[in-house]
Amino acid sequence: MAPSPLAPIAFPELPPIAGVRLAVGQCGIKYQNRTDLMVAELAHGTTVAGVFTRSLTASAPVEWCREALPGGRARALVVNSGNANAFTGYQGQTTVAVTVDAIAELLQCAPNQVFVASTGVIGQPMPPDLITQQLPDVLAVLSETSWSEAARAIMTTDTFPKAVTRQAIIRGTTVTINGFCKGSGMIAPDMATMLGFIFTDAAIEAPVLQKLLSEATERTFNCITVDGDTSTSDSVLMFATGTVANKRVAKASSKRLEDFRRALDDVMLSLAHQIVRDGEGATKFVTISVAGAESRKAAKRIAFTVANSPLVKTAIAGEDANWGRIVAAIGRAGEKADRDRLQIFIGGVQVTTDGAALPDYDETPVAAHMKGQEIDIRIELGLGKGEATVWTCDLTHGYIDINGSYRS
Amino acid sequence: MAPSPLAPIAFPELPPIAGVRLAVGQCGIKYQNRTDLMVAELAHGTTVAGVFTRSLTASAPVEWCREALPGGRARALVVNSGNANAFTGYQGQTTVAVTVDAIAELLQCAPNQVFVASTGVIGQPMPPDLITQQLPDVLAVLSETSWSEAARAIMTTDTFPKAVTRQAIIRGTTVTINGFCKGSGMIAPDMATMLGFIFTDAAIEAPVLQKLLSEATERTFNCITVDGDTSTSDSVLMFATGTVANKRVAKASSKRLEDFRRALDDVMLSLAHQIVRDGEGATKFVTISVAGAESRKAAKRIAFTVANSPLVKTAIAGEDANWGRIVAAIGRAGEKADRDRLQIFIGGVQVTTDGAALPDYDETPVAAHMKGQEIDIRIELGLGKGEATVWTCDLTHGYIDINGSYRS
Repeated sequence: MAPSPLAPIAFPELPPIAGVRLAVGQCGIKYQNRTDLMVAELAHGTTVAGVFTRSLTASAPVEWCREALPGGRARALVVNSGNANAFTGYQGQTTVAVTVDAIAELLQCAPNQVFVASTGVIGQPMPPDLITQQLPDVLAVLSETSWSEAARAIMTTDTFPKAVTRQAIIRGTTVTINGFCKGSGMIAPDMATMLGFIFTDAAIEAPVLQKLLSEATERTFNCITVDGDTSTSDSVLMFATGTVANKRVAKASSKRLEDFRRALDDVMLSLAHQIVRDGEGATKFVTISVAGAESRKAAKRIAFTVANSPLVKTAIAGEDANWGRIVAAIGRAGEKADRDRLQIFIGGVQVTTDGAALPDYDETPVAAHMKGQEIDIRIELGLGKGEATVWTCDLTHGYIDINGSYRS
Repeated sequence: MAPSPLAPIAFPELPPIAGVRLAVGQCGIKYQNRTDLMVAELAHGTTVAGVFTRSLTASAPVEWCREALPGGRARALVVNSGNANAFTGYQGQTTVAVTVDAIAELLQCAPNQVFVASTGVIGQPMPPDLITQQLPDVLAVLSETSWSEAARAIMTTDTFPKAVTRQAIIRGTTVTINGFCKGSGMIAPDMATMLGFIFTDAAIEAPVLQKLLSEATERTFNCITVDGDTSTSDSVLMFATGTVANKRVAKASSKRLEDFRRALDDVMLSLAHQIVRDGEGATKFVTISVAGAESRKAAKRIAFTVANSPLVKTAIAGEDANWGRIVAAIGRAGEKADRDRLQIFIGGVQVTTDGAALPDYDETPVAAHMKGQEIDIRIELGLGKGEATVWTCDLTHGYIDINGSYRS
């Protein structure tokens, strides 16, 4: 599969994070001739935070992580691609338990310090020994530099590996945040979008880390959609090794974490955007911002209704500035809207006013904008102060190709 | 455009309805070399009922019909295709007013006895004289038999005209119901699906007719979806000429209207199914029934979440019995579901139990079912007594072809 036309030019250079060592392996779960297992070993004392799908049919790995998370500590992360271990019943739980126990014994840690994630096909039993028999070999090759390999091992229909790094200063000490993720279909809000893993050498207590992660998720991963479909499996886990001895900060909302919050937002937004850029079949990266809504929640709902409209998405694929479909999506979003106050801008050009197209509307610059790869739609409702921005991609033949034949 | 592979073999034979005369014309609003105007002249005393889009950006014709409906009487219906006259501001209202006044004068009736509907592109001004200058010629050729011509004149991306006829007995008197409609994209519940027109020679007071129509809509048109997109324009209008002198029935819920209700449901369900069968790019007609939900509303919401899932729809297009995607859709529907009680049946074959595939699940008969044109998905939640059935089609390259280039 050729990389998405929206892919970044190159994989970024990720520095080591002291206390994080990575390795990958080949289990043959579904894919042949590629890696499908990723293990991260984490230093003693590493704190952990997580956000998970809100799906009521969550996978066995998600259920395990939810159980383990209150412990607040992590020594290992084990991720496989090719099988989501979701809707696999009792056997799915057994597979998780066997995997967790195996690595806990190898690393001599408590089982609730082992976090797991799986991505791939739903509903197919996953035999546990495929992973466990690879674990000793994989642990033997742990390295501080295997970021690119790790990002590749967790890919499914992704066409490029996704990662980012940023630095931040906490009370005078410089810390680093690395993140990588996978995801390109079944992408929708409600934290059900993908697998994402974030590592920092900062020293941050688990409850503070959790708050930072949850809040950043709302502004980043929960603002993207490819197809409105939410998965059973997906998870974002964040690990703080504390190997850089910054002075502790007790509150997530503290001014002293302002720069860290900014850097974390940056990391997560970059990962979220990379997922949209790898949206199945995507040829356009679309930013939809809504202002003037009754509330932030209303703005987000309207933005997502536009972002998930198959008619809007296919019009963008066809490079057609069909703003009538945007109007229709706004009208059915279920939030307050006034047809006659509504203003729509495409590529910065105002298109509508007073419940109709601008009297002297000239489509030329808008049509030129639609031919680009970055599409910008701005909606002003003129009702209140609610604002939101979401990101999506277009809906193309590529999406049908990929999803009309994924499983077989 | 070739007819949908799911189209009926032939257009049905519709008998005349005394008091209804139809004619079509060619205004050149958007289409060349085809009809795009349909006028129905209705006998004095005809009662009317209507249901309309819930979109907050409703079209000018919808706003007019809402205003005229409380009068309860109709003498004319004027419908055009090619331009929806939606989001056309003040000029859109003028176009409606000019059209209504012209026909009211020609037929010597009150303006609020004239009903209008428009379908096609959104946001393009529609000059009123294109229609009004055709009206005298069109009224000159009114006929009791032009059902097929009428159904054709209102088509947009439809690949076949849609109509149906049924008979019913009211207090010993046989009455007839004819209906026709258009619609194949921007199809979603909330009565925002299409244009539908239903005519009967029965004598039924307007408030009773309204109740019958509203209730039947919930069970029929509001149970279909093609793409989850709801239009600004769409309307179902029902006219009862009273030319058959059945004894009156004062209550819509009366036992004496039982047979009429059955026939009306039949008519509207047939029309609704025909719309799904003409879903843009459709190759499969899909029935999704949900039982055992907490309530009827919950069942409908779950059924629609499955029906609108792009991943489910593309899997069906690919003839892949990918029930994992059905599980995922159920899990994110926002209604109560218990993974381990859930049972999924495809083509009548049970696929899942106890949160996993059946231990001895044999995909052979299910795979054979997926190759057919009629796909049947049944979901048992095991929680309560809520039931609902919705209908949809698959999502194919054809949908992208049609909608990636519709306007231009």
